[in-house]
Amino acid sequence: MKALVYNGDHAIALEEKPMPKIIDPTDVIVKMSKTTICGTDLGIYKGKNLYMKPGTILGHEGIGIIEEAGENVTSFKKGDKVLISCITSCGSCENCKKQLYSHCKNGGGWILGHLIDGTQAEYVRIPFADNSLYKIPPQIDDEIAVLLSDILPTGHEIGVQYGQVKPGETVVIVGGGPVGMSALLTAQFYSPSKLVMVDLDDNRLALAKELGATHAINSSAANLLDQIKEIVGEDGCDVAIEAVGVPPTWNICQKIVKPGGHIANVGVHGQKVDFEIQDLWIKNLTITTGLVNTNTTPMLLKTVAADKIDLSKMITHRFKLDEIMAAYDVFLNASREKAMKIIINN
Amino acid sequence: MKALVYNGDHAIALEEKPMPKIIDPTDVIVKMSKTTICGTDLGIYKGKNLYMKPGTILGHEGIGIIEEAGENVTSFKKGDKVLISCITSCGSCENCKKQLYSHCKNGGGWILGHLIDGTQAEYVRIPFADNSLYKIPPQIDDEIAVLLSDILPTGHEIGVQYGQVKPGETVVIVGGGPVGMSALLTAQFYSPSKLVMVDLDDNRLALAKELGATHAINSSAANLLDQIKEIVGEDGCDVAIEAVGVPPTWNICQKIVKPGGHIANVGVHGQKVDFEIQDLWIKNLTITTGLVNTNTTPMLLKTVAADKIDLSKMITHRFKLDEIMAAYDVFLNASREKAMKIIINN
Repeated sequence: MKALVYNGDHAIALEEKPMPKIIDPTDVIVKMSKTTICGTDLGIYKGKNLYMKPGTILGHEGIGIIEEAGENVTSFKKGDKVLISCITSCGSCENCKKQLYSHCKNGGGWILGHLIDGTQAEYVRIPFADNSLYKIPPQIDDEIAVLLSDILPTGHEIGVQYGQVKPGETVVIVGGGPVGMSALLTAQFYSPSKLVMVDLDDNRLALAKELGATHAINSSAANLLDQIKEIVGEDGCDVAIEAVGVPPTWNICQKIVKPGGHIANVGVHGQKVDFEIQDLWIKNLTITTGLVNTNTTPMLLKTVAADKIDLSKMITHRFKLDEIMAAYDVFLNASREKAMKIIINN
Repeated sequence: MKALVYNGDHAIALEEKPMPKIIDPTDVIVKMSKTTICGTDLGIYKGKNLYMKPGTILGHEGIGIIEEAGENVTSFKKGDKVLISCITSCGSCENCKKQLYSHCKNGGGWILGHLIDGTQAEYVRIPFADNSLYKIPPQIDDEIAVLLSDILPTGHEIGVQYGQVKPGETVVIVGGGPVGMSALLTAQFYSPSKLVMVDLDDNRLALAKELGATHAINSSAANLLDQIKEIVGEDGCDVAIEAVGVPPTWNICQKIVKPGGHIANVGVHGQKVDFEIQDLWIKNLTITTGLVNTNTTPMLLKTVAADKIDLSKMITHRFKLDEIMAAYDVFLNASREKAMKIIINN
């Protein structure tokens, strides 16, 4: 089969690989229909991920059709159309019983396209299938469903839920990539009064306004903090969501949050940051970090099926699996290409 | 009246000051019976507090008898014995209605011995008396009651409650001063399985064992992190409580907490710290900071009245108000003097 293989720093290639096989009786093999590229895939491409071994197939998102189900799989059978969660989980270990599926102690967590072969291929093996796949409601378009593998639950759980967005509150999202936009969309479930997007890219700011931001500010503005406080109030915002993963965006967040407020870090960071605790010890802040658990995927499927949020504007490009190298090139130059989410069709 | 006055960096003196007067009709004047010295008072003495103006009377803890009550005070009258909360709050602003009394927007918060004259004096004016004072149950000894002004609610709310200590969990407290010991005592309300105290002072570690620590480790040990993980497990602890306020103790906390765990920062920091977010973004941590709200003071008064915790070993020294300079000298040299909490009697 064809698969996109990581061969080391800046070395990925579409190669012929053997078909995956059932290993454990709780596995299924999925024939991929659609997948996409994540920011963390770019991180792997750039050699930033220490756990990714050369020879591994990339990708942790997508939908497909079950080709074969292990004998202990009870919820899915050959021919079922399924959403693949970016998080694989046994469902029965101590962490899974706390809904901390991202840290499944039986070999789950973020393993697809990371510790085992992933979804940017014609076929993929999904361990713990009963707890790691979802049936797709018929109201949801196949392309839209792909966005529920990772970015929508990540923005919702690690941004909005960990940030404890509540009705009437003021929310600032720093970073308008796919996950920041997902936080923007799902924050609206909880009716904040102000919903501010901050990004460097005017194209993304315009999209943020279309997707429901009450305000959009270019972070290159010299008086950025003043502009934010003019909107959310002098004390700062209730919730700051960091959706980039670099020190300057973290710094914006720690400067704009009010006493009693929340900083929800969603960004994947490559270096330490300064925590201005000499000013913040007294502010009764809650700062959270995290990898998505996908415990809200069933809820999110219902909201999308019920047209509570419109994800269609998040998809900007489409490629075939054969063209995946070109798709990576577009996503690596997302600003120039005005790319948000790219669908790869098998 | 006699009062301990801050005259600038390293300059405090017991001086004659005018008697406080009722300013607002919600004020009371309290004749102080007993007060104590807090670590933050030492910070003020050392010139570390930017908001403390020379001429201000120190102190934010203590008990006393109401000498005079403003005409709008409804819950207290002349002659009542009262516990003074370190936090003054109006009870009716937006923050007070969120129980964020520490950030009362009507001029409350930590103001005593900070923004207005404090309790290390013969008399003190207490604003918003109805919401900032408590009647003391007859079962509670006067000296013990003093510990409920600040340290017990601080350890409980900012350490144990913000850290979300739950039954069966593993808790590590870094710092065995009065607030760390208060966290140690109140953590036991929630039945953790392991309760580890880490401190540099063997005398304090011995006291921690007496007060209920299951383990006590000297933080000077070369293999400190290994020792902790041997007790709490390789993944780390559920809750790390930082009760010192310096970079090395923060660093211990961020290295020992497990995925899904909590770091509750209680320490008052004077400089920024490194936040190792490049390792911690993926760990689903919750990090909290805060100034005590004293919203659990009524609950704590009930637990102490019911003998659920024994605070008596926390009191190591007693002085008269006339001797308060000697008391400061002892507390400034707490390790040498084996001092924990010092009662100042009027």
